[in-house]
Amino acid sequence: MAKKNAFYAQSGGVTAVINASACGVIETARKHKDKIGKVYAGRNGIIGALTEDLIDTSKESAKAIAALRHTPSGAFGSCRYKMKSLEANKREYDRLIEVFAAHNIGYFFYNGGGDSADTCLKVSQLSQATGYPIQAIHVPKTVDNDLPITDNCPGFGSVAKYIAVSTREASFDVASMSKTSTKVFVLEVMGRHAGWIAAAGGLAASADCDLPIVILFPEVAFDQAAFLAKVKEKVEKYGYVSIVVSEGVHDASGKFLADQGLKDAFGHAQLGGVAPVIANLVRENLGYKYHWAVADYLQRAARHIASQSDVEQAYAMGKAAVKLALAGKNSVMPTVVRTSSKPYRWKVGEADLSRVANVEKMMPKNFITRDGFGITAKCREYLEPLIKGEDYPPYGKDGMPKYVQLKNVAVKKKLNDFEVK
Amino acid sequence: MAKKNAFYAQSGGVTAVINASACGVIETARKHKDKIGKVYAGRNGIIGALTEDLIDTSKESAKAIAALRHTPSGAFGSCRYKMKSLEANKREYDRLIEVFAAHNIGYFFYNGGGDSADTCLKVSQLSQATGYPIQAIHVPKTVDNDLPITDNCPGFGSVAKYIAVSTREASFDVASMSKTSTKVFVLEVMGRHAGWIAAAGGLAASADCDLPIVILFPEVAFDQAAFLAKVKEKVEKYGYVSIVVSEGVHDASGKFLADQGLKDAFGHAQLGGVAPVIANLVRENLGYKYHWAVADYLQRAARHIASQSDVEQAYAMGKAAVKLALAGKNSVMPTVVRTSSKPYRWKVGEADLSRVANVEKMMPKNFITRDGFGITAKCREYLEPLIKGEDYPPYGKDGMPKYVQLKNVAVKKKLNDFEVK
Repeated sequence: MAKKNAFYAQSGGVTAVINASACGVIETARKHKDKIGKVYAGRNGIIGALTEDLIDTSKESAKAIAALRHTPSGAFGSCRYKMKSLEANKREYDRLIEVFAAHNIGYFFYNGGGDSADTCLKVSQLSQATGYPIQAIHVPKTVDNDLPITDNCPGFGSVAKYIAVSTREASFDVASMSKTSTKVFVLEVMGRHAGWIAAAGGLAASADCDLPIVILFPEVAFDQAAFLAKVKEKVEKYGYVSIVVSEGVHDASGKFLADQGLKDAFGHAQLGGVAPVIANLVRENLGYKYHWAVADYLQRAARHIASQSDVEQAYAMGKAAVKLALAGKNSVMPTVVRTSSKPYRWKVGEADLSRVANVEKMMPKNFITRDGFGITAKCREYLEPLIKGEDYPPYGKDGMPKYVQLKNVAVKKKLNDFEVK
Repeated sequence: MAKKNAFYAQSGGVTAVINASACGVIETARKHKDKIGKVYAGRNGIIGALTEDLIDTSKESAKAIAALRHTPSGAFGSCRYKMKSLEANKREYDRLIEVFAAHNIGYFFYNGGGDSADTCLKVSQLSQATGYPIQAIHVPKTVDNDLPITDNCPGFGSVAKYIAVSTREASFDVASMSKTSTKVFVLEVMGRHAGWIAAAGGLAASADCDLPIVILFPEVAFDQAAFLAKVKEKVEKYGYVSIVVSEGVHDASGKFLADQGLKDAFGHAQLGGVAPVIANLVRENLGYKYHWAVADYLQRAARHIASQSDVEQAYAMGKAAVKLALAGKNSVMPTVVRTSSKPYRWKVGEADLSRVANVEKMMPKNFITRDGFGITAKCREYLEPLIKGEDYPPYGKDGMPKYVQLKNVAVKKKLNDFEVK
């Protein structure tokens, strides 16, 4: 069999450690030059494959590739683009095969979440449908932690650590100010459908660090009276409270709290976050002074406070993907298999993509306390190992982290232009 | 002279390193037990002195006091309370002397910004006015970096590092997403009057890390047309842009941009931040997809990414305050004196409080680029040393920073109650 090249692409929202997976893929492929030729990366994800905009990663030094391990974001560019079914979109799948064939690509590594697992599954079926030999391996990544089978998703642990640490720090701050000033701090976090990230706010408090934390999960319909009573209870006991609110919190009718129909002085609709809505609610009903923050991209880009577990697993998933390819596998995804929580032990597993695509893993019900505002011991046991350890990037003399910006040299095009519709 | 006790209090908004100053004060005082008795801390700042709510720091172990160096927030509680002039508020100053006398307090260490320097100055004048011997020393602290004479203020360097690092990280993130999704990221930072913190966003880009950053300073009247043109220029060149906006940005008439008269569906006024206002402006006029974040307390509490320079200086200021007291000084503040920028060298200086109180240090005009949207080389030369070095807190096996919560044992009261009006 002639030596084939590999294609690698990043998909969807990026994370603090998706580049660590890229590093795992490329470094491992470089160790198997007898079997894998070059690794071509898609510029801006699958769009790069469709438009034949490939990046030749062999032009990057070993040092630059190694630096991907500590660089947040998607170094080759990502995209939000979900391919339709083979039947509905034959044109694009044909084009993929055309590009793969033109560049002798036999391995397809797709690094993303649920949507991209679905795309990867479809690509894996191209082999049979078209006769062109391609092995498609999905590399798990999502801050939402909602992929099934794998114990957790690379990207989540670092967001969780950021939210847990930031909530602890802000809680210390508001505690200091609460006598004469701010009594309530509200932090809005990501997670439209699942409360995994919000749950991480619960780690701010621990057996050796007593802090009042109230969590608003998207899994729990917002009950204003119960919420205000809980806030009042905490402030009366501690003098202050921190509220961690998921962007996806909604009421019993399904209406997002963030969607308050805000209008500015000119009558234009304004998109606000849910944090100011919660803060105003507290002030209007309880009269407490508040501060609020919206972490947004800061939470998923925060490589400076990445979890060591997360970085190691992200790298391991990239490495395992290449190993699976070398073993002749197709239509699979490496997974994290937890073998023990205390002490934390895990190993690399393997899942069929057909069991991964289009399945969303929700938080188990027994991870949320009965009152709906906190995390249970079971949840803590699950989360703690995922934020374990620190993996600091190197810093320059200027006090800034040394994140790599790749050269991203384009591979010479061989085909006609193709329009992505 | 009989050995006197010391009083220490934290004032105003807390920082990631104000406890490092407390650590410097207490550890240094403990080394001079022949001259300084106990260090009593005011519970919730000066309120604690007025209400005779004193904390006996001698009840804390050496280990707990050492841990203050890496613990953000104000460990004894802070307050927002500015004492009026001696003439207007004789009742409170008399009360202070009463409390000092009852607890044999001869040293007054006040850790805060401009307002507290003014209070400290007034306390320093009590000696002469009342005949009760008290030495008042101000310990500089403010994230706003607006105290005069001192080259910089402890607390600022760590916020600056947080903003610089976070802006770099978020810029990498939006760069990855910009092809098909988000092209503009807006980060709102603190600084109502002075743009020091916003300026730190400019450090995200550097000679070895090219990133498009647009800064909106409170010093520069907001010019919508010029701003939108700058955003467009950056997006057309780079594909994306990061905007760092100070909460204090206002138009030529002085109106804060954050003050947009937002109303919710029920007609209630909503307090939003300036970040969503800027983001909406960009979308409505240029059509770019955006994300926005408001760092709020996260920025000033972020001890996990504190600047080493900042931590060292905060500690040094606390230590120097005690040394000044031992040298018989009154009405002074230790300062940071920069002796060289490259390499960075500094020493401890001393300033008369009369020259510090009620003077606000603004950003020099030549720190802002002519177009009003960036920082100059001079500004960079000033800022870089202040974010130099990392000083990580210790972490537990649970992946969380080990911040100390003190016992804060109250000193037995000897006086009647006093009402703070």
